[in-house]
Amino acid sequence: MGTLGELAYESQERYREFYGSANFQFAAPPYLFTLESGKKIGPININYETYGQLSPEGDNVILIAHALTGSARVGPAKETAGRSEPGWWEPLIGPGKAFDTEKYFIVCANVLGGCYGSTGPASIDPLTGNPYGLRFPVVTIRDMVRVQRELLRYLGVRRLLAVVGGSMGGMQALEWAVTYPKMMKGVISIAATGRFSPQGIAYNKAARKAIMNDPEWLNGRYYGRKFPVYGLSLARMIGMITYKSSEIMEKRFGRKLQERDCDLYAFRQRFAVESYLDYQGEKLVKRFDPNTYLYLTKAMDLHDLGRGYPSYRAALRRIATPVFLLGISSDILFYPEEVRGMAVDLRRSAVEATYDELKSPHGHDAFLIEFEKLTDYIREKLTYLEQ
Amino acid sequence: MGTLGELAYESQERYREFYGSANFQFAAPPYLFTLESGKKIGPININYETYGQLSPEGDNVILIAHALTGSARVGPAKETAGRSEPGWWEPLIGPGKAFDTEKYFIVCANVLGGCYGSTGPASIDPLTGNPYGLRFPVVTIRDMVRVQRELLRYLGVRRLLAVVGGSMGGMQALEWAVTYPKMMKGVISIAATGRFSPQGIAYNKAARKAIMNDPEWLNGRYYGRKFPVYGLSLARMIGMITYKSSEIMEKRFGRKLQERDCDLYAFRQRFAVESYLDYQGEKLVKRFDPNTYLYLTKAMDLHDLGRGYPSYRAALRRIATPVFLLGISSDILFYPEEVRGMAVDLRRSAVEATYDELKSPHGHDAFLIEFEKLTDYIREKLTYLEQ
Repeated sequence: MGTLGELAYESQERYREFYGSANFQFAAPPYLFTLESGKKIGPININYETYGQLSPEGDNVILIAHALTGSARVGPAKETAGRSEPGWWEPLIGPGKAFDTEKYFIVCANVLGGCYGSTGPASIDPLTGNPYGLRFPVVTIRDMVRVQRELLRYLGVRRLLAVVGGSMGGMQALEWAVTYPKMMKGVISIAATGRFSPQGIAYNKAARKAIMNDPEWLNGRYYGRKFPVYGLSLARMIGMITYKSSEIMEKRFGRKLQERDCDLYAFRQRFAVESYLDYQGEKLVKRFDPNTYLYLTKAMDLHDLGRGYPSYRAALRRIATPVFLLGISSDILFYPEEVRGMAVDLRRSAVEATYDELKSPHGHDAFLIEFEKLTDYIREKLTYLEQ
Repeated sequence: MGTLGELAYESQERYREFYGSANFQFAAPPYLFTLESGKKIGPININYETYGQLSPEGDNVILIAHALTGSARVGPAKETAGRSEPGWWEPLIGPGKAFDTEKYFIVCANVLGGCYGSTGPASIDPLTGNPYGLRFPVVTIRDMVRVQRELLRYLGVRRLLAVVGGSMGGMQALEWAVTYPKMMKGVISIAATGRFSPQGIAYNKAARKAIMNDPEWLNGRYYGRKFPVYGLSLARMIGMITYKSSEIMEKRFGRKLQERDCDLYAFRQRFAVESYLDYQGEKLVKRFDPNTYLYLTKAMDLHDLGRGYPSYRAALRRIATPVFLLGISSDILFYPEEVRGMAVDLRRSAVEATYDELKSPHGHDAFLIEFEKLTDYIREKLTYLEQ
C-alpha cells in the first residue's frame, strides 16, 4: 500500500470528472443558500442523473436518495458517460424493472457534502480559492433534502410520486416526508429510522476517529497531497462490520485462514474475514474523499426528524402521505425492531405506515444485495401509490 | 491529549510495579517453555494473586481467569499492596460472597502475553536485552492455560474445584476443560464460546489496525518512547461499542449533547456517547500496553477448542466435568444464541452442560456489572460442584 495515497488521489480526480456529466448550480454569490445551522454557502453544485422521461402531467417522478458512499449513479451506465460503471441500484432500474423507466422519471442526486460531483469539503471555497476542508459547514440530512428540492424545481418537477432510499437514503426519504409533506404521494424508507441511535453514532465516531488519527489527514488539508488512506480504510472496515451480519460472516468466511505462506501462529497471518475487510478498506479509498466521510457520518448522527419542531411526534404528525418502512431481519446497524418501532410511532401520529421485513442473512447491506425481494416490495408499494 | 503518550508510559511503569507483588518464574533458560506454535520461550514470569487458604485436602481451589484487559487482581485490594485498587470481580470475592474466601482458595494469574506483571511483549527478550515487541511469539488461549497449570503445580495445587471466567476468561475456562479434563470438578464459562466468531475476529482486526496505523507504534518498538496512545484509544472505543448494548446506550446517553460551548452544528460538537467513548479510550491507555492488546486479541481470534484434535466435537468429547454456560441476553459480541448453541454441542458430545441466561441490558459487560445476579448463579453452580 506504499503509494496508495497518490493512487487514491488520482482515482478520485477521475471520479470527479466522470460524475460531472449532469450538474445543477445554484446559490451563486451573493445569493447564498442558508443551511439548517444558519450558515450560508454558495455556489452549490449538485451532480445528478435522471432515467426515463418526465410525463406531460409531471406525475411520474421518483426521487431516489443514496446512502453514505453512494452517488447519483443509481441506475444503468449511461451511453453518454465516459465510463460504463453501473449504478448502485442498477438491477432495480430500467424498462420493466422495479423502477420501470418506461413509466417513471427517476432522479438521483449526489448529496450536499458528497464527493461525486456535488459541493462538499473537497470543493473550492470561493472565500479562499482552496478546497474547503474543515471550513466546510456541517450539513444535515434536512439540508440535503432542501437542496434536492432546489434541483427538482430546476428540473421542472413540482410533485413526486415517491421518495425512496436505504440507510442514509432512507433517512432522507423520511426527512422529505416531514419537510415537504405535500410534495409526494408516498415514501419508501429502507433500513432507516427517524433519528439515529447512539450505537450508530458510536460506530460513526470510531470511524471518524480513524480518519482524524491519520497523520496524513492534516486537519482536513490533505488535498493535493497524500490522502489519509489508512485512516479512511480503517473507517470503512468499522462501517463494513456493521453492514454485515454475524450469520453471513460465518457462512462466507467462517474461521478460514488467508495466508498460505505462513502458519497459523505467524503474527501476520490473517483470517479470511480480515482479508475481506482489508480489501473493502483499500477499495473505498480509491473512490471516496475522507473529509466527505467525516461530514456525511456527522449528518447521519445529527439525523432527527423532530429537530426544530415542538417534539418528535409533532414532526411525525406533519407527514401527510403513506410511509412504507422496510426493516432487514439481520441488520445490526438499524435493528428491525427499531424500524418496526418507528412504524408504531407513525401510526400513533396518525400517519398511514406499513412495516415489512426483508428476510435476509446479509445484514444492513441486504438493501444493496437482495434485488429480487426488493423488486417485489418496491413494485407493490409504487402500485399502491399510483392508485 | 498532548502529553498523553508520556503519561501513559509512566502510568504503565507504575502498574507493572504495583502488580509485581506475587510472582512465579519458570522456564528459565535453557529449559524453555514450548508454546502451542512450537516456538520456545523463557523465562516466563507469571504474576498472580490468591485469596483465602488452601485446605489441607487441597479440594477447595478455584481458578479464575481474566478477560482481555484484566489482571491477576480479581478480588479486594490486599493490605500488603502498595495501592488499594480493588479487583475486577471485587464484589464477588470475600467472606460470605459468591467466591467465599472462608471456604475457597482463589487463584488468579495475569495471562501469558499480558502487561500486568506476566511475561508479554513489553518484557525483556533475553536474546536481545530489549523488550520483545513484535519478536514476542504469538500465544494462544491454550498456552495461557498451560502456563496456569505450571503456576498451580508451583502452588501445590493438584486439583481444582472449578475454573471460572468471562469473555476471554470464559475461553480459558473452556480450554481448561478440554486440555486438563481430569483436573477440575467443573467449569463456569460466562459470555464465551468454544471458538471465536468471524464477527468477533472482525472487531479485533479493526482494533489492531487502529494500533498499527498509529505512527507512534513503530512496528512495536515504542518502549521508552511515546506509546501509540491514539491508536490504543481507538482500539478501546471499537471494543467498548461491542461490550455495550444498543439498549443501554439509548438509556444512558440517548441523543444528549456533550459540549455546552458550541452549538449542534459545530464540527467539534460531540454527543454524550462520543464523549463516553473518548473517556474510555483515554482511560485504557493509562493502564494498558498496546502490544499486549495486539497479542491478546490475536489469542482470542485463534481460540478454537478443536485445534489439534481430529475435530471440534472430538475436543468437546474429552471434557469429563460439568460445563456451566452463562449467556447474556443483550450481548452483541457473544450472542446468547451462540452460547446456547455451545451447550447443545456439548450435550451432543455427551458432556453435562447447562445453559442459563443473564437477563441484562448491559451487553457483554454485564459480567463485570451484574454482581447480584452473578452471585446467585455462581453460588448455585459451586454448591452443585461441592456435592
